[in-house]
Amino acid sequence: MHRAAASSICTVLALGAAPGLVGQAAAAEPAARDKPPISAEVLESAQPSDWRRPDPANTLYLDLPAGRVIIELAPRFAPEHVANIKAMVREKFFDGLPIGRVQDNYVTQWGDMDEIRKSEAAKRQLPGETAIAWSPSLPIVKLPDADGYAAQTGWLDGFPIGVEPTPPAQVWMTHCYGIVGVGRNDWPDNGSGSELYAVIGQAPRHLDRNIVLVGRVIRGMELLSSLPRGSGALGFYTVDEKSRRTLIRSARLAGEVPAAERTNLEILRTDTPLFTRYVEARRNRHESWFVRPAGHIDVCNLAIPVRDIPR
Amino acid sequence: MHRAAASSICTVLALGAAPGLVGQAAAAEPAARDKPPISAEVLESAQPSDWRRPDPANTLYLDLPAGRVIIELAPRFAPEHVANIKAMVREKFFDGLPIGRVQDNYVTQWGDMDEIRKSEAAKRQLPGETAIAWSPSLPIVKLPDADGYAAQTGWLDGFPIGVEPTPPAQVWMTHCYGIVGVGRNDWPDNGSGSELYAVIGQAPRHLDRNIVLVGRVIRGMELLSSLPRGSGALGFYTVDEKSRRTLIRSARLAGEVPAAERTNLEILRTDTPLFTRYVEARRNRHESWFVRPAGHIDVCNLAIPVRDIPR
Repeated sequence: MHRAAASSICTVLALGAAPGLVGQAAAAEPAARDKPPISAEVLESAQPSDWRRPDPANTLYLDLPAGRVIIELAPRFAPEHVANIKAMVREKFFDGLPIGRVQDNYVTQWGDMDEIRKSEAAKRQLPGETAIAWSPSLPIVKLPDADGYAAQTGWLDGFPIGVEPTPPAQVWMTHCYGIVGVGRNDWPDNGSGSELYAVIGQAPRHLDRNIVLVGRVIRGMELLSSLPRGSGALGFYTVDEKSRRTLIRSARLAGEVPAAERTNLEILRTDTPLFTRYVEARRNRHESWFVRPAGHIDVCNLAIPVRDIPR
Repeated sequence: MHRAAASSICTVLALGAAPGLVGQAAAAEPAARDKPPISAEVLESAQPSDWRRPDPANTLYLDLPAGRVIIELAPRFAPEHVANIKAMVREKFFDGLPIGRVQDNYVTQWGDMDEIRKSEAAKRQLPGETAIAWSPSLPIVKLPDADGYAAQTGWLDGFPIGVEPTPPAQVWMTHCYGIVGVGRNDWPDNGSGSELYAVIGQAPRHLDRNIVLVGRVIRGMELLSSLPRGSGALGFYTVDEKSRRTLIRSARLAGEVPAAERTNLEILRTDTPLFTRYVEARRNRHESWFVRPAGHIDVCNLAIPVRDIPR
């Protein structure tokens, strides 16, 4: 809600935007060096080792007519569902299937909505991978801030998580904006992966541990979030709205497309001292626009920076 | 992430949808009466007095080519800003102005983005109405669930709030999905109301008490949230993207349009025992789809039901 007229000031608030402007401001105001850094300054100070490249074998390209949605899959959290999705992708299972549900402030869902396809490679029955066992040896990055839905929150493998160290001692991905899950009918059906959804609104954390999550959109969320909403129950497009459906051109693993067709991205690592400083800069905002730092940050309010890397 | 095939089951999860189906399920399963009610059942049991009609003098119609966005203004929270906005609306200030900023997972912003208009009636300087004084006599409905950003949360006049009963003893609207605020430059400029924004993503609660909030979208959010994102800094449309801007046909107060042109809505009251039951049904979901109730609800995860009323 910065006003347009203030764009020269405001750009420093955009993730990674206009580092030159930040530098100029710092140079013009040497006394300001005593202030805590803002997040753009923290990012500017990142070393190459503070970034990671997602594994091409677990990076899914969902190519739509309007562009590419890139999903980082999370095999640690749902190994069998991720394996199933990858098996279907190799069969070109998703090619030509629709985005058939867009429910405002909730989810965009795509895949075999009409149950017209059959995968040869995918399993029909999978375990209910809604959480993994907690262990003190898991490389969990804790967020110290209190959370209402989980005893603890933080990150694991770069994905936002809830943690319950006491029995049942579980770790699970949290339903933040951009998280990708597996559509299902009533339990114990937990879905095969033939229908997937991404969160496009306020984090529906009440779904945590109720459904299998398989990854996170790291690029192209706007292609899923700006689609016309369906007017049927739960945001499904009605029969009359079939023409509003977006059809998936292709779904491919990054590792299986030619190098020239890949989108080469880096994601800020969450297991570094720099990330801790980044979180603090987002928890307490000291950009000139702000008058009151929040003193708190929710795990779903921390968008993890992603950037292009040169080919 | 219900699958499409399960739509007969899933409809009960939609707010206020298909009450007939809920009734049938209850009739078929008399033993289920011992289970806590689900939110659709709570809504079904609502009496006329559990609903309220927004004040036409504080209901703003933002008519876009694609339809009507309806905003309930909140004069208690920002009386001078609301008065300013209403003064501008009476001047037809917003008619023809653009939606000039759509930042994914953040805000949609409209109004005098190009600073081409001048209001005769509106004040240029207003007090910084980011919070009101807390008082024990305020008719606050408390949400008992813990919150990281505020000592307490709840509702006041039907708007979601944060509460700090200790000094500085304040109450403020929380930045939930659909909340409407006033664009500003750097403080102490707090904006005149000539540019407004609505939250279209994860609740940016770090903005609470940093900016003036004036109301909430009660109908038509999808018209703001499904717009193409701007590719400029902070989601502003670039010069090349001016053609993507949506132009506001008109902005009018409901009380000032002919009765036949009004959209007649009712909003579920938040200050009733029924609402408390509704919150509990959303805090712990017992619909058949769920396997694990959350045991918690965030003030921004509680969408307050709105329904059409017959003319």
